[in-house]
Formats: sequence, C-alpha cells, structure tokens
Amino acid sequence: MFITFEGGEGSGKSTAIKKIKELLVKDGYDVLLTREPGGTPISEDIRNVILDKKNTAMDKRTEILLFAASRRQHLVQKIWPALKEGKIVVCDRYLDSSLAYQGGARNTKVEDVLKVNLFATENTWPDITFLFDLKPEIGLARIHKNHRVDDRLDNEKMDFHLKVRAAFLKLAKQYKNRYVVIDASKSSDEIVKEVYKIIKKKIKK
Amino acid sequence: MFITFEGGEGSGKSTAIKKIKELLVKDGYDVLLTREPGGTPISEDIRNVILDKKNTAMDKRTEILLFAASRRQHLVQKIWPALKEGKIVVCDRYLDSSLAYQGGARNTKVEDVLKVNLFATENTWPDITFLFDLKPEIGLARIHKNHRVDDRLDNEKMDFHLKVRAAFLKLAKQYKNRYVVIDASKSSDEIVKEVYKIIKKKIKK
Repeated sequence: MFITFEGGEGSGKSTAIKKIKELLVKDGYDVLLTREPGGTPISEDIRNVILDKKNTAMDKRTEILLFAASRRQHLVQKIWPALKEGKIVVCDRYLDSSLAYQGGARNTKVEDVLKVNLFATENTWPDITFLFDLKPEIGLARIHKNHRVDDRLDNEKMDFHLKVRAAFLKLAKQYKNRYVVIDASKSSDEIVKEVYKIIKKKIKK
Repeated sequence: MFITFEGGEGSGKSTAIKKIKELLVKDGYDVLLTREPGGTPISEDIRNVILDKKNTAMDKRTEILLFAASRRQHLVQKIWPALKEGKIVVCDRYLDSSLAYQGGARNTKVEDVLKVNLFATENTWPDITFLFDLKPEIGLARIHKNHRVDDRLDNEKMDFHLKVRAAFLKLAKQYKNRYVVIDASKSSDEIVKEVYKIIKKKIKK
C-alpha cells in the first residue's frame, strides 16, 4: 500500500505522519516512511541543482522536469522496492505537490505538469492521499508563531498560498477515489485518530 | 532560422559545422554556433549529474528527464534570445538525439521521449535538420583510427549504433519537411558545399 500526505505550509502533516508511522509499527506493520528526494544520491544531486542559490535563472519548466527526475529516481530506488517487499510506504508529498505548486499556483497547465509526471512515475498513483486542508493564514501563522504574519508576508505571497490550497482542493475533487480531505484545523490527536482509522479500514480491504 | 545537425559517432558533423559557420559569417550573417549544454550554468550542472560516474544507478527515464531539463534551459537562455535577435542558430545535436539515442536505441517509446521533450521545448522545432548518415562501422573506424575497431567494440555496442542509425533514418522519413539526409561517407569539402547550398536556398525563401 502506497499512502501520500499533501497540504500547504504549517498544515501539521509531517508531525502527524510520524505518529501514524509509530502506530502502524506498533500494530506490526512493516513501514517505509519517506519524502522526496529520500536520501538517494541521484535525487539529492538533482535537488541540489534546484536549490542552488546561484541558479536564479532557472526556468519554470526546467524546474518541473528536475522535480520529476528526482521523483522518478526516488520511486525506482526506494518506493518500488519497498512496495515489492510488501511494506506500507508512507510518503510526505508526492506527485500532487508538483501539480498544485508548479501547476496550479505557478500557472503552468496542470495537464502539462501531469504528463511529465506520468512519464516519470509510469502511472504509479498512491492508494490513498490525505490532504491536510487549512486556511493559509492559519498555516503560516503556525510556522511564524513568533512573528506577526502580516509583517512577513506580502499580498503576493498570500495569493500564492491561496492558489496552492485551491489547486489541492480541485485535485481532491478530481481524484475522489484516492483523496481524503482532512480538516487540519483540528487537534493533532484528533487528526491522527481519524487518519489511522481510515488507513486500517483500507488495509482490511 | 534554427538549424540542427544530427548523426552518429564519427559522422564528421562537428567539423563540417565549424566550416559552415565560417562561411555564414563570411557572407555577413550573424550566427550563434552552440551545442547542449551550451555553457549555461544550470544546464552544465544538470549534465554533471548525468555524467557523474558515481551515479551508476541512474534510471533511463530519470536520464531522459534530465536531458530534457538541460535542453530547456539551453533553449531559454541561449537559443531563444539569439533567434529573437535575428541570428542564425546552428546547434550540434538537439531534440532528435534524445529521440534516437534514448528512445529508438534504448527501448523507451519514442512517443514518450517526444512528449517530455515537447513539454521542454514548447514545440520549438528546427527549421532544418541535417542528418549526417553513415554506416556505424565507418564512423567508429574514423574515431578509433589508430585501433582495430573489431578489437574495441563488441557486438552489443555495434548493435546499439545500428539502432541509433535506424532510429535517425526513421525520424528523417517522419519529419520529411525539415530533414535533409547527407551521405556522410563523402569528403568533408563536398558535404560542406552541399549543406551550405541548401542553407542559402532556405535563407532566400
């Protein structure tokens, strides 16, 4: 089983994922918890090119291709082998993040971003995708809790985060079968309980 | 005008291109002679990831995505600006090399390699593509002229070069409008004359 978690900044998904992994392990499941680039040297090298501060001239489509290349290698070297061994793979962000951030929010056609990513993943879709949905104001306030948010974020940035949220919610509608939308304004304990119940149900199927 | 040169190893295209550039410059044209990754820092960084000897675990599709990313950046930073300035751009290898080497000869579907590259190039096709066609035996003998070819190349390698040639010839048929197939067994002077005549004719149009 391949489970992914998606959502904006400060949605609390990374914290929740760790607790869910612990619950799964406690219940005797073999789990791989990972996130791109996942420690594979090639994916790390590719990420370094993306993140290199000198590479300010990087074109949007170049970036989309590089993320897809990094994703591909992570899939080939970590996710596919773990799935083959019968592990439950839990991945913090995956393909949908490219669709929402690089497509929806940065004005490249989502279908185009999807095409490149379907080539990269050979149609490897998650069995479940949990979307931690939250108003950007709340998520960003969580991240910058020691600062006044309105000091640090101009309107343009807020607009970007609103677009990311809208793009994720659109994906959730489009891919109803695998998407579960979680109200990320709830407490972490409540969320973990809710998510875990859904995963257990899916495993029993 | 955007002109590309394609062909297998030892086809003599790089030598011919230099001479053609000189002729164009002599005739008063403004020419950019380039080849991927073309000296743009991001494309160079990407190439380094591809060529890094430690990256032996690189998957074929990862490589295709990386070549496309490098091509994209070269296009954005060098080819497009030169074309905008009205220059004649002459490029030693381009998209067709990915189709022939990574698609045709390495068994990834050519249409899939094409899809990724059309995303990368936003359908920027050359106006003319000169294919320097040559039997691999001759091309490889030229490269290894101080060695007996049969000592250095096993059957598997020869098979690969035969596939590359077949893939290029298939592309030439498929894209008749822009392809010109050059018999690369002729002398360099003859070839340069022939190619230059075709370019001049195209310019007049």
